[in-house]
Amino acid sequence: MHVAMIQGKVLPIEELEPVYLDRGIFFGDGVYEVVRSYNGKIFALEEHLQRFARSLAAIQITDADIDQIRASVQKAFDAADIVNAKIYFHITRGSGLRDHVGDAGLKPNFFLTVTELPDYTQEKTKGIAVSTHPDWRWKRCDVKSLNLLANVLARQDASRKGCAEAIFVDDAGLITEGAGSAFFAIIGKTLQTAPLTANILPSITRQYVLTAGQNIGLEVLEKSLTPQQSRCADELFIAVTTKDVVPVVRFDDEIIGDGKPGKHTKLLIQEFQKFVI
Amino acid sequence: MHVAMIQGKVLPIEELEPVYLDRGIFFGDGVYEVVRSYNGKIFALEEHLQRFARSLAAIQITDADIDQIRASVQKAFDAADIVNAKIYFHITRGSGLRDHVGDAGLKPNFFLTVTELPDYTQEKTKGIAVSTHPDWRWKRCDVKSLNLLANVLARQDASRKGCAEAIFVDDAGLITEGAGSAFFAIIGKTLQTAPLTANILPSITRQYVLTAGQNIGLEVLEKSLTPQQSRCADELFIAVTTKDVVPVVRFDDEIIGDGKPGKHTKLLIQEFQKFVI
Repeated sequence: MHVAMIQGKVLPIEELEPVYLDRGIFFGDGVYEVVRSYNGKIFALEEHLQRFARSLAAIQITDADIDQIRASVQKAFDAADIVNAKIYFHITRGSGLRDHVGDAGLKPNFFLTVTELPDYTQEKTKGIAVSTHPDWRWKRCDVKSLNLLANVLARQDASRKGCAEAIFVDDAGLITEGAGSAFFAIIGKTLQTAPLTANILPSITRQYVLTAGQNIGLEVLEKSLTPQQSRCADELFIAVTTKDVVPVVRFDDEIIGDGKPGKHTKLLIQEFQKFVI
Repeated sequence: MHVAMIQGKVLPIEELEPVYLDRGIFFGDGVYEVVRSYNGKIFALEEHLQRFARSLAAIQITDADIDQIRASVQKAFDAADIVNAKIYFHITRGSGLRDHVGDAGLKPNFFLTVTELPDYTQEKTKGIAVSTHPDWRWKRCDVKSLNLLANVLARQDASRKGCAEAIFVDDAGLITEGAGSAFFAIIGKTLQTAPLTANILPSITRQYVLTAGQNIGLEVLEKSLTPQQSRCADELFIAVTTKDVVPVVRFDDEIIGDGKPGKHTKLLIQEFQKFVI
């Protein structure tokens, strides 16, 4: 008899809920997105759906219907009735007995949550500390996949050091991005961040930040930073969907500028708000 | 209201079964093992439990009790009453609202299945074809984690090419291991495989194979192979818990030897059987 054991109880495997056999848990065989609302309106949903479609295609999950996903996101967001909401959703290749290849009859599983965003005022007004961590991630970080253990371990390491984010440094000594954010430096009048050709996620917030940077008169340079360059930068910040622009005031043991959010970073926070009205 | 959506249905997030919030699915934040039985007896369980403990420690899951896991494995195996069984188990860091760091109160989730092994006689007597794939995996493949999307994609690619296994080739042009197996070549009287210092799993079957190789008079060389060396090898095979030694008779488009399992590989299959009696 084929059996499973859950919380110490043995049962026939046929009696398992399909979620226990989700390929998301066996392999991380799925992709996800996070979108947020500002003041009751979902921001940049189409860009996120387009990226989700690219992630699905990259791992050859072909049965997902983006129109249906858009409708589901809207339905759940309306039901939740939260003004500043975080909307998380993922699709996995389906549920079945554990097998790397998986049979052709798998049906994708869709899962979504809508929760209220915390108040990030303190982080945004006082800035955060970040710590570097070796970039242990896989080579397809352009795909927003459920394989995030390297991100978890790096973020836990940062947390133990009293830091709010981990910044990945690759084997070449170059910064790729944060464990859950894009990373930026301002050096003089130049806004610098890694190019999309690095092993990074094509961040949607990153694109808006680059536009905001141009709007406030900064020159954009898409070139990987080193930790040393970052320690000496005039200003540092991270960008992430849930919080948009968050100033970085400490990088490992180095205080950045005068230890307070930089003037251009504060301008960028204001400028970003124009996109979300 | 915080909500979730499952199969199109919106519900309060508090009503979700904890398995839907398993960090295994959100992040692959867990580790696993596969053991098998031969003729009603579990093989090399202690080695697998020791490796499992190392994997748990590597990702800092500290609440797991190896003695309890051993008892659970035996209990489920006894209940299943399968002579040649495959026993899969994993532990994840726990269930909770999605957050990279996770709070200190998380309780690990244990999951296990016991299923009957298929008959691998054909693969073992005729040999299999394998195809190479870039090694996209993360940099901690010494940890047997649930982050296996690179393995899934490589195995699917192999399957489309009519191959039973994908062989990973790293950026330096060196073979690391298979998507779900260790990889070996026999060149003259030398049995060669990647050293454990490569980014590979410390395979338990690999250790038994190296011993078996010495037993039949082969010299062991732990040095990474290139695809070119593999194509020219006298014999190739893979080793994996569920099937022990499986001859490889085609490597990408190259037929190995005379296209039949090599003589030393056949001896190794016999020799391996001595361990499992």
